[in-house]
Amino acid sequence: MTPTLQLAFDLIRRRSITPEDAGCMDLMTQRLEKIGFQMTKLRRGDTDNFWAVRNGASQGPLLAFAGHTDVVPTGPEENWSYPPFTPEIRDGFLYGRGAADMKGSLAAMVVACEEFIAANPNHSGRIAFLITSDEEGPATNGTVKVVEWLEEQGEKIDCCIVGEPSSSDRVGDVIKNGRRGSLGLELKILGIQGHVAYPHLAENPIHTLAPALSALAAEEWDQGNQSFPATSFQVSNINGGTGATNVIPGEVEVLCNWRFSTELTAGDLETRARAILDKHNLRYQANFKLSGLPFLTAEGPLVQATQQAILRITGEKTELSTAGGTSDGRFIAPTGAQVVELGPVNATIHKVDERVKADHLDLLKDIYREVLGELLT
Amino acid sequence: MTPTLQLAFDLIRRRSITPEDAGCMDLMTQRLEKIGFQMTKLRRGDTDNFWAVRNGASQGPLLAFAGHTDVVPTGPEENWSYPPFTPEIRDGFLYGRGAADMKGSLAAMVVACEEFIAANPNHSGRIAFLITSDEEGPATNGTVKVVEWLEEQGEKIDCCIVGEPSSSDRVGDVIKNGRRGSLGLELKILGIQGHVAYPHLAENPIHTLAPALSALAAEEWDQGNQSFPATSFQVSNINGGTGATNVIPGEVEVLCNWRFSTELTAGDLETRARAILDKHNLRYQANFKLSGLPFLTAEGPLVQATQQAILRITGEKTELSTAGGTSDGRFIAPTGAQVVELGPVNATIHKVDERVKADHLDLLKDIYREVLGELLT
Repeated sequence: MTPTLQLAFDLIRRRSITPEDAGCMDLMTQRLEKIGFQMTKLRRGDTDNFWAVRNGASQGPLLAFAGHTDVVPTGPEENWSYPPFTPEIRDGFLYGRGAADMKGSLAAMVVACEEFIAANPNHSGRIAFLITSDEEGPATNGTVKVVEWLEEQGEKIDCCIVGEPSSSDRVGDVIKNGRRGSLGLELKILGIQGHVAYPHLAENPIHTLAPALSALAAEEWDQGNQSFPATSFQVSNINGGTGATNVIPGEVEVLCNWRFSTELTAGDLETRARAILDKHNLRYQANFKLSGLPFLTAEGPLVQATQQAILRITGEKTELSTAGGTSDGRFIAPTGAQVVELGPVNATIHKVDERVKADHLDLLKDIYREVLGELLT
Repeated sequence: MTPTLQLAFDLIRRRSITPEDAGCMDLMTQRLEKIGFQMTKLRRGDTDNFWAVRNGASQGPLLAFAGHTDVVPTGPEENWSYPPFTPEIRDGFLYGRGAADMKGSLAAMVVACEEFIAANPNHSGRIAFLITSDEEGPATNGTVKVVEWLEEQGEKIDCCIVGEPSSSDRVGDVIKNGRRGSLGLELKILGIQGHVAYPHLAENPIHTLAPALSALAAEEWDQGNQSFPATSFQVSNINGGTGATNVIPGEVEVLCNWRFSTELTAGDLETRARAILDKHNLRYQANFKLSGLPFLTAEGPLVQATQQAILRITGEKTELSTAGGTSDGRFIAPTGAQVVELGPVNATIHKVDERVKADHLDLLKDIYREVLGELLT
C-alpha cells in the first residue's frame, strides 16, 4: 500500500461525523510537524480547527491547502457493502465514508507536501494547511472562524487549493474555480382558515400562491455568463393544511433557494421575487437568507499552475467549472485569495458505499505536489 | 323547565363522543315506547342505531325523524365557560356539547311526538325515528347501514326530517332541502429528487404542479342553478419536500375536494380535472373518491308542510338552501324519500361553548309537531 492510501485508511478509520474530528487532526499534525510545519490549534465552540504553516527559504506566495476532517452520517450501516469506517480496497476502489469527501484528499495533501519538501527543502514562499471539522454541518465554527483569526494575525493566503471532490470521471478532469451564490427564502402565504363547504368565508392560501409560484418557477433570472451557468430557482419544501380534508388551511409555507451567478446580486433577486409576489396580491411574509456570495478565481497563476500540473500527471486538459454546491471556498475567496477546488471523483459522495478509485489518490497527490513545484520553486 | 329542555339536559349529560351513545338511545326509546313506538335496535360494528315506528289508524305517508346521538370531541374542557357535559342555562342560552348538534333537536322530536300523539292518537300514516351514534365520525356503521336494513325489510320512508342545525339566526329561518355532492382527490405529482445545485439532474414536482394547480383553482366548473350554488374546488393540504433546504423533492402530495351541484357529475369533474392535469404534462397519480352525491328535494308536500309549520309557529318565511357540509340526508335521499333538514341555529356547532337559545328548542318542538299535523292528520 502506498503512503497516501495508508494515511487515507488511518483517517477513514476515525469516526469523525460532523462536528467530531475523532483524532484525524492529530494524525495530520504529527506528520506535518515532522516536516517543519508550525501548528496553531483553533478550537471554536464544538469544532476543532488547525492552521499549519511552513516558511520557505525565500520570498514567494503563501499556498494553503484547505479541507475538512468531518464526514456526513452513514445512514443505516447495514446498507453498506463494507462497514463505512473500516476501509476496504475491492476491485480497485477504496470504500469508506470520507474516501472521496474528503479524507482521500487530506492524505494526498500531506504526502504531497512530504514528497515536495524532501525534494525541495529550501522552497520559496510558504505552505499552509487550513483544516476544520465543521464543513458538512452548520459551518459556523469552522473555516469562517479560522479566516477571521488569520485576518486578526494580518495573515493573507495568496493561493488556496480546497480538496473538495471536483472531478467527474477521471481525477483532474474538472476543477472548480468559483461557485455560485446561494440565497434562501422562507415564504409564508397567509389566508383565512375555514370549512371547504363554505369557501366564501375563507381565503385559500394555496390557491392564491399557485400562480405566483408558477411565475417564480418560470422566471428567467439571468442567462449566466462565461464563468457561471444561469441562475436557478428551486422550491425545496411546501407545506400547508391541517391534515383534515374538509378544512381550508390558514397558511402555507414554502422554502426556496437560488443558486446565483455574478450577473446579479442577492438584493436583485429579493427585489424581483418581491415584485412577482406583490403582483399576485398575496399576503405574505418573506424571510431572505444569504448563505454564500458567488466567487470566481479568474485564470491566473493558481489556475494555470493547477492546469499544467494536471496535464503533466494525467494528460488531462482540465475543465473549469463553477457549478455544484457551496464549499468553504466561499469563506476564503472574499479575502482576496485565488481559490481552486481540486479533488477526486464526486460520484458517490454523501451516499452509501462512498468510494474512490484507489490509484486516483496517488494521482491526486502527484498533482498537488506538482502545483507546489509550479508555485514555490 | 319545559319537557323539551329537560330531555335536552338529560341527553347532554351523557358523554356520547362518536361512536359512543352513552345511554342516549335508552332515554329516547323509553319515551317512545310509552307512546306506542315499536323498537328495533340495530347495532353495527362499534355503532348503536335504532329504528322506531308507530303505525297510525289509517293509510298515509311514513314520516321519519332522523338524527344522531353522538357529538364531536370537546377539545380542552378548560377552554369552556361551563363543563361541556354539564348543561347550563345562562342568559337565555343552553350551553353544552350537543346543545345545537343535535341533542336539542332529538329532545324536540321526542316531545313533539308526545304532544302530537296525545292530541291525535288516531293519526294517519306512520311516524318513525332513525337514530345513529355515528354521524360525526366515519359514518360507515350508522345511517347507511340502517337504510340498507330498511331496504331488506321492504320499508320505504316517504318524508324525512333530519334534525341537523340548519338555522342561521332564528330557528327555522333556513331549512336545507338538499346538499351538494362531495368529491375528494388525492393527487401525487411525481418528479425526480436531486440537489438544488444540480437542477438539470432533477425534476421539481412542485414547479411542474404550480401552473396546473393555478388552472384547477381558476376553473369555473359550473355556475350552479336555482337550487345549488356553483360547484367549488378547494385544496385542503399540500405537502412536498424532505425538510432539507438543498434537496429538490421527488414528489408532492395534494388533497383536494369539490362540493358540486346537480349541474354535473363526479365523472364529469374527474374527466375535466384529468384533462387539466394532462394538459400540463404532469406525471401524476390521481385517486378520486366520491363521498356523497348531491341530492335535492323539490318543492312538494314535505317542503311545503315544513314551510307552513315554520310560518305558523314563528312567522318566519323560511329560506331553502343546499349550502354547507354533508349530512346523513345523503344516505336517505337516494331511496326516493323527500328530505329536509331542520334544526336550531348552527353558529356554535363543533366549537367551544356550543350553545343554543333555550326557547328555540321549544319553538323547534312546536314546528316539528305542526309538520306532523300537516302530513298525518
